Amino acid sequence: MITRIESTQNPHVKQWKKLQTKKERNKTGLFLIEGTHLIEEALKYKAYVKELIVREGTEYSLLDVGDPIEIFEVTEEIMKHISDTETPQGIAAVCGMKGTAPINIATAKLLLIDNVQDPGNLGTIIRTADAVGMDAVILGEGCVDLYNGKVIRSTQGSLFHIPIMDGNLDVWIKRLNVIGVPVYGTALEGARNFKEIEPQKHFALLVGNEGNGVDSNLLKLTDDNLYIPIYGQAESLNVSIATGILLYHLRG
Amino acid sequence: MITRIESTQNPHVKQWKKLQTKKERNKTGLFLIEGTHLIEEALKYKAYVKELIVREGTEYSLLDVGDPIEIFEVTEEIMKHISDTETPQGIAAVCGMKGTAPINIATAKLLLIDNVQDPGNLGTIIRTADAVGMDAVILGEGCVDLYNGKVIRSTQGSLFHIPIMDGNLDVWIKRLNVIGVPVYGTALEGARNFKEIEPQKHFALLVGNEGNGVDSNLLKLTDDNLYIPIYGQAESLNVSIATGILLYHLRG
Repeated sequence: MITRIESTQNPHVKQWKKLQTKKERNKTGLFLIEGTHLIEEALKYKAYVKELIVREGTEYSLLDVGDPIEIFEVTEEIMKHISDTETPQGIAAVCGMKGTAPINIATAKLLLIDNVQDPGNLGTIIRTADAVGMDAVILGEGCVDLYNGKVIRSTQGSLFHIPIMDGNLDVWIKRLNVIGVPVYGTALEGARNFKEIEPQKHFALLVGNEGNGVDSNLLKLTDDNLYIPIYGQAESLNVSIATGILLYHLRG
Repeated sequence: MITRIESTQNPHVKQWKKLQTKKERNKTGLFLIEGTHLIEEALKYKAYVKELIVREGTEYSLLDVGDPIEIFEVTEEIMKHISDTETPQGIAAVCGMKGTAPINIATAKLLLIDNVQDPGNLGTIIRTADAVGMDAVILGEGCVDLYNGKVIRSTQGSLFHIPIMDGNLDVWIKRLNVIGVPVYGTALEGARNFKEIEPQKHFALLVGNEGNGVDSNLLKLTDDNLYIPIYGQAESLNVSIATGILLYHLRG
């Protein structure tokens, strides 16, 4: 069924617009994604796609929507109103957040993220964790909201591919310690060159804030802390670059 | 000498504002940088800092300006007017582009960049190239302008640390071929796993556009093309992540 909407005052439009805020997303358990590629990924990986929002004149018959779904045709003005990009694509969807299935952490490769605040960094890190085949990503305190539009865009769909959950990193690391999964922190000082560490079947990598790195209290709980040598004049690497280098090294 | 300016109609202000465009930057050979950290880096690495622009009330006495330099004190309104960020820092500077000293390409590690269009990606790639100790970066056709504000911010100052120049990549690769420096392209298909390649003392790495990768005509000129295996469901890695992984591997 297709419903046509022409007014930005329509209650649906108001609701979609509100999904730009974290508060509303958490209240409703819903979030908005934009663009054909992300919607395809959501449908392909059986994310719960609740509503499709299509700008008039946009072709979407190639989307394999599957189950019956509410479709809204809207004006260009409405699409601009609800989008958080300057040049919105012609299609958006309302998705439901979903719980993640339990994972066996004794045999998993985990990425723990402490206080990463830049949406592009967080999204790119999730995309990289997906590419390298990590089993789950744990978002600790202070991380930018996963359902922020720019985070979602930067994941390029990877948020639909791997389990991502909020968690208390202190508790997670202690749990991993108990069951003997090695946890590697990242630090610029008092750490070991990452190349000294052999690739591992199971491990957790802990990365941290853009300016301050990983919380020093968390670094005390790890098995080892790693650094990537800097050969030039740069003071440090971007956190998403460092994460990529370390994950591909540890994964072997 | 300190000149105070209170009007956005002042010719200096108009000139600074114009430096937001590539056309004006190329015409004058000047570009604007913002923030204490970047200005410190520019001064430390002897970039040509022509004018310092300080918002009234901003402390800058700790900056080691060295040579006499023109200093302008401006209102908050003016600083907002000339800045390309939403929350400008209290200090900016006009710098001169400079030519780069000749490098001995027979004994160099070079990064060739084809058509990378996202400013954050280009800046982060340059920062990474600096960190890993590359000798120079060559920007091929289609790359976003190096002096774009977001590129400069993302380099975190690395644009002052290593030679970066525009170049014809076709010519560069052929020149490297002649003198026997191995050139590695990057490709998703028909390429070798990067781990098969041993670290090298001298090499050139060629990376490319976010959506389309490296131009296929350039890939035909390389000694080998490399890929990074994808173990999960992601279709690819972000170009700056891939560059980081490959550079740290090839550098050894």
